[in-house]
Amino acid sequence: MNISIIRYILGWILNIEAALMLLPCLTALIYQEKSGIYFVITMVLCGGLGALSTFRKPKNTVFYAKEGMVSVALSWIALSFFGALPFYLSREIPVFEDALFEVISGFTTTGSSILPDVEALSRCMLLWRSFTHWIGGMGIIVFMLAVLPSIGGGATMHIMRAESPGPSVGKLVPKVRATATILYQLYIGITLVQIVLLLLFRMPLFDTLCITFGTAGTGGFGILNSSCADYTHPQQLIITIFMILFGVNFNVYYLLRIRKPKDAFRCEEARAYLGIIAASIILIAFNVRHMFPSLLESFHQAAFQVASIITTTGFATTDFDQWPEFSKSILVILMFIGACAGSTGGGLKVSRVLVGVKEMLQEMRSLFHPQCVNVLRLEGKRVENTTLRSINAFFVTYGLIFFLSLLIVSLDNFDFTTNFTAVAATFNNIGPGLSKVGPVCNWSEFSPLSKYVLMFDMLAGRLELFPLLLLLSPWTWRKNF
Amino acid sequence: MNISIIRYILGWILNIEAALMLLPCLTALIYQEKSGIYFVITMVLCGGLGALSTFRKPKNTVFYAKEGMVSVALSWIALSFFGALPFYLSREIPVFEDALFEVISGFTTTGSSILPDVEALSRCMLLWRSFTHWIGGMGIIVFMLAVLPSIGGGATMHIMRAESPGPSVGKLVPKVRATATILYQLYIGITLVQIVLLLLFRMPLFDTLCITFGTAGTGGFGILNSSCADYTHPQQLIITIFMILFGVNFNVYYLLRIRKPKDAFRCEEARAYLGIIAASIILIAFNVRHMFPSLLESFHQAAFQVASIITTTGFATTDFDQWPEFSKSILVILMFIGACAGSTGGGLKVSRVLVGVKEMLQEMRSLFHPQCVNVLRLEGKRVENTTLRSINAFFVTYGLIFFLSLLIVSLDNFDFTTNFTAVAATFNNIGPGLSKVGPVCNWSEFSPLSKYVLMFDMLAGRLELFPLLLLLSPWTWRKNF
Repeated sequence: MNISIIRYILGWILNIEAALMLLPCLTALIYQEKSGIYFVITMVLCGGLGALSTFRKPKNTVFYAKEGMVSVALSWIALSFFGALPFYLSREIPVFEDALFEVISGFTTTGSSILPDVEALSRCMLLWRSFTHWIGGMGIIVFMLAVLPSIGGGATMHIMRAESPGPSVGKLVPKVRATATILYQLYIGITLVQIVLLLLFRMPLFDTLCITFGTAGTGGFGILNSSCADYTHPQQLIITIFMILFGVNFNVYYLLRIRKPKDAFRCEEARAYLGIIAASIILIAFNVRHMFPSLLESFHQAAFQVASIITTTGFATTDFDQWPEFSKSILVILMFIGACAGSTGGGLKVSRVLVGVKEMLQEMRSLFHPQCVNVLRLEGKRVENTTLRSINAFFVTYGLIFFLSLLIVSLDNFDFTTNFTAVAATFNNIGPGLSKVGPVCNWSEFSPLSKYVLMFDMLAGRLELFPLLLLLSPWTWRKNF
Repeated sequence: MNISIIRYILGWILNIEAALMLLPCLTALIYQEKSGIYFVITMVLCGGLGALSTFRKPKNTVFYAKEGMVSVALSWIALSFFGALPFYLSREIPVFEDALFEVISGFTTTGSSILPDVEALSRCMLLWRSFTHWIGGMGIIVFMLAVLPSIGGGATMHIMRAESPGPSVGKLVPKVRATATILYQLYIGITLVQIVLLLLFRMPLFDTLCITFGTAGTGGFGILNSSCADYTHPQQLIITIFMILFGVNFNVYYLLRIRKPKDAFRCEEARAYLGIIAASIILIAFNVRHMFPSLLESFHQAAFQVASIITTTGFATTDFDQWPEFSKSILVILMFIGACAGSTGGGLKVSRVLVGVKEMLQEMRSLFHPQCVNVLRLEGKRVENTTLRSINAFFVTYGLIFFLSLLIVSLDNFDFTTNFTAVAATFNNIGPGLSKVGPVCNWSEFSPLSKYVLMFDMLAGRLELFPLLLLLSPWTWRKNF
């Protein structure tokens, strides 16, 4: 294990986090809030430690997948630790594990909150809380690599593989650094469009920024206790559309940008994703028809909630825990499917589900024709056996972590629905679940043990399981392995 | 598709079912119950139709996997239809879909009952109900092949593959017919031992027969409204031990029988299975300690319930729906793991879970050493890629059917726990779930649609998904495919 390069990367992460905290500092200045001072303190700590670690460039630049995994996992933990400090130091969230939960929920774009009263927070804290979604959405380390030329291309690739959601990223363009830059341009571009649109429809600037950060990162922290219920219908519609857009594979936008619209529209994953959304909206809209004054309103509410859950954002315009069980079951299933690979969303990812369904059909076909060699294709390309095995290992690992978490969380003795959807909502980085963790509830009632398990689940879900598992594995720390 | 040979097999199944109904007839004679007449009527119908179908031997003996799957699926449907007739004709279960549900629950060894008052049934009906567990446990078609020399060896193999639980059966001994015979000898032998033991501990003969049939098939129909709670502790202990024994891979008994105890004890799957049972019993016993007068009692109750759930039997000695959530979560997880492959139990099977865990560890290892070729081994033998893909396709198909069923059942608008565990309990052939389908409740409240979905799940779970899916697939009925 090349410790010195991991230290170097961690140092840069801390430097960048210090820089990013300028935004809440600025907010504190504008609104003349005293709690801004805690961001200054954290910036000094962060920046100081970062400067120490990056003072000397490491001589040993050996960097393999192992180093990539470990540095990504450690970076996210460090990021969360220092990100939680302002909340804790200012006593706006007086318990440290609660502050940590809130920030991990932010960076992993989960959006589960332990706050019983969001509106009690100062503005600079609210902005930082929503900003963590935006930072975590595309991945901070990818950002670092895009702007920092001092780390080699091999390292960049290993890190991007470990941090980006979904199985296919890293093959967009041969030059990895160029990819990272283009991804960030697209990310910032679409974010700006949403900000402009919301402002045009008269949302206040502060709300616009926070909500847009939450949408872009598919995070879901609201700044009102009612989440998004108090915004106007056109504003909610804009949020709905942008949630769906941020759940699309960024490959599609890349193809559009390099003027290959035909290829973009042929994307199998995005089409399946949009198909699932359309079907779910129609089914739910008719199922909840009696709860709303008009069919249009019913469609509006269904669309917002479906977009929010499948993209794993977690905003809500209504308490869907009150909906009929059929609609709730659809939402639970969408929680697991998740958004496209290569988007900011979480969950299993549509492409993995697609490959799974194709494996099933192929198995049925091979029962008829055992002698045939069947080739599995996705996006017109052959899916290699090693990829298939990775995807399958992912499914199994996912199931194991899920059930183990369920077991520990159930020690708190809440009902099964609460435990099951609490794990599902954090592990898939969604936010709200059902019953005691429904959209109008908060997560503060869980025991510290459960909170740490759910924090682990959020990080494991965001980093696609293996970086975090490797961090805990004894192999990683054994010499010469 | 070779229709004539499928017709021939179906005919023999009906003949055998008619013959098996002699047992409830005899019971009716002994207890002088009038409802015995309905068994005679069914036997005449069954036997008549069977005789017509088997009158002429088919000339075309072409028989592939496709024919095997379809004939197994159709046989089980026919078996259930005629098995339900006595209940329906006698009006002891006045609604036909309820009678069908009860019998499918019997043959698939699920043990979910729609009866609010089991004790109201006549003795001959009770015996038939429990006897279906025993028949379904080892598979009736395997039995037919063991005694019927007129079907070729190729057919035998394809049918056994389709009917036997777990991925590995059919490789026990090269001669498939011999395997079937040995399996049945072992099955009958262990059943007899349990009968003798229960009689020694003074259980009445009628109870002994019914309970033993339920244990051997890992079914779980009780003949008292209290399931097994009213039996004495030694009797419950015997049932516990035999439930566990019937959940072991029959390969182990085969190896013991041919005097290879070393190989038998080396069986990886059986050891994992016993390990899971031991761990679960200990965890639950301490978790429910406060609910029982002594630790010993607590262990006794934990052992019975764990054995009942992991083997997918479904007997109960206590209302475990009242247990703490931690214990309930363990039971829900055991529902999914299930018993060993090649046993009479259901669920995903321990060997599949083992392969999954090994895939996960291998994936982690390959993240460190991408250049290494890792070979996955089970029971010391290399697991081929095609087997791996089958297992993975199984996991995915399992998940898809599970979620689709959950969706339809949730239309009845019961709570999430009820819907989730109802599907889990039927699909894994267990019996009781939690909440409204808990061990002291019954299933009659579901809508007819939900009941048919749950019947499909029971059959799909017992026949390991694909035979039933193929029956519904348009490919199967297309010519020249």
